[in-house]
Amino acid sequence: MRAQGGGGSFRPRPAPGYDLCVLDLVLLRHGESEWNARNLFTGWTDVDLTPSGEQEALRAGELLAAEPSLDLRMVHTSVLTRAIRTANLTLDAAGRSWLPVRRHWRLNERHYGDLQGLDKKETANRFGLEQVTLWRRSYDVPPPPLPLGDPRHPAGDPRYRDVPSHVLPATECLADVVARVLPYWDDVIVPDLLAAGARGGAVLVVAHGNSIRALRKHLDAISDADIPGLEIPTGFPFRYRFDDDLAVHDAGYLGDPDAARRAAEAVARQAG
Amino acid sequence: MRAQGGGGSFRPRPAPGYDLCVLDLVLLRHGESEWNARNLFTGWTDVDLTPSGEQEALRAGELLAAEPSLDLRMVHTSVLTRAIRTANLTLDAAGRSWLPVRRHWRLNERHYGDLQGLDKKETANRFGLEQVTLWRRSYDVPPPPLPLGDPRHPAGDPRYRDVPSHVLPATECLADVVARVLPYWDDVIVPDLLAAGARGGAVLVVAHGNSIRALRKHLDAISDADIPGLEIPTGFPFRYRFDDDLAVHDAGYLGDPDAARRAAEAVARQAG
Repeated sequence: MRAQGGGGSFRPRPAPGYDLCVLDLVLLRHGESEWNARNLFTGWTDVDLTPSGEQEALRAGELLAAEPSLDLRMVHTSVLTRAIRTANLTLDAAGRSWLPVRRHWRLNERHYGDLQGLDKKETANRFGLEQVTLWRRSYDVPPPPLPLGDPRHPAGDPRYRDVPSHVLPATECLADVVARVLPYWDDVIVPDLLAAGARGGAVLVVAHGNSIRALRKHLDAISDADIPGLEIPTGFPFRYRFDDDLAVHDAGYLGDPDAARRAAEAVARQAG
Repeated sequence: MRAQGGGGSFRPRPAPGYDLCVLDLVLLRHGESEWNARNLFTGWTDVDLTPSGEQEALRAGELLAAEPSLDLRMVHTSVLTRAIRTANLTLDAAGRSWLPVRRHWRLNERHYGDLQGLDKKETANRFGLEQVTLWRRSYDVPPPPLPLGDPRHPAGDPRYRDVPSHVLPATECLADVVARVLPYWDDVIVPDLLAAGARGGAVLVVAHGNSIRALRKHLDAISDADIPGLEIPTGFPFRYRFDDDLAVHDAGYLGDPDAARRAAEAVARQAG
């Protein structure tokens, strides 16, 4: 198996034996959260979905159910409520609530450090738009970390109590997210993809804007410069099909691709 | 570790070292389902919760959250939607949606054979009350099995496609349920209890009237004659604490025990 996925292009390419050994993956960003709606930096803050976010999750489930060639076998989520509730609602709507599910902190949103809980516009006023844009849109510049002993630090949250404290972040840039997502991809999701693929089945990952960016950077070999600009709309399932060496065969949004594109553009105007 | 739990009594008994090695288990029957409400034999039919059942699940979550000595670490459910959605809602209400969860068919409700989907009163008119009472309240008399090729048979349901077909039931008596629940208890739940207990934590099992009866028969050494009369109310968490040899130290409903008793009596008037 190669360390990298195929090139950055989404063009299908001919693959002998494709029907025999396709690996099938769906990535889904959680629906709108309470802090998306309030334009606050969220990161690892455990906010819930809005009613609109719940509707997005149900619609995602309908899109999954409407795709006859898609046969989900396993689900992965982060340990943040907005991803877990999206997965629950999506699976309910798809008639697949009974699928086995794994939850892991490595699929969490990027940790936004000391910016978590701040209003995005106020932050721009305080630190300057250029600085905030750098934190939001650079690949390797993390925001200021949480101070030592800050009650927002994940070390104080029971959901992380079994995680060695030295791997819990106090801030993260996108490069940090890539570094902590990939071990989970390689060690847990890929074996599930191979097991599901052997029976014609697929794996669903319900996660966050930046953990999905991290996966797509790897799978499509997107450059450090380009990846921060890749927008991930909430509630639109994105499907990859891979050859058995995990090179991308084809990829795209389920349902209406124009709707997904418009949603991504809307997210671009307020995301972070 | 003994094969049987302690005696049928719920009296606490002194246990040296109790604080050091207590094993902590909570059993929860799903909230009211659509077919509970319509008085139909349900079994493995995959019906959803009623709005009242959703409220019961939320209340159960509040009871769990209100118990400071209870520290959930792991959740088990059946693969039926009413138990899964109860677990999801209960964990949401308890602020524990991120707990790891395992789902297994061995925790399913008793399979009600060819009676599944029939109205309980009509069935009594058709077969006679004595016969129906025998099916509902004997330990070892199963209802008539599903006919071969019946579309209700679990072999046709994708959630059971990885289960060897010879273990999938076409009908079950309570003794059959005991026989298929106990391997899951011994092999999966007990190791989770030991792992959770080593860190002062607890395990939650969200299941059904008869799979919970099967567990309580084993844990409290209830006789074959007595177990069919044990009523399990919907939506009331029942907590066991065991010594480290799995003998029962104490047990009882969380919250108001009179409310649980009244709910059990109400269930007795319509259950099956």
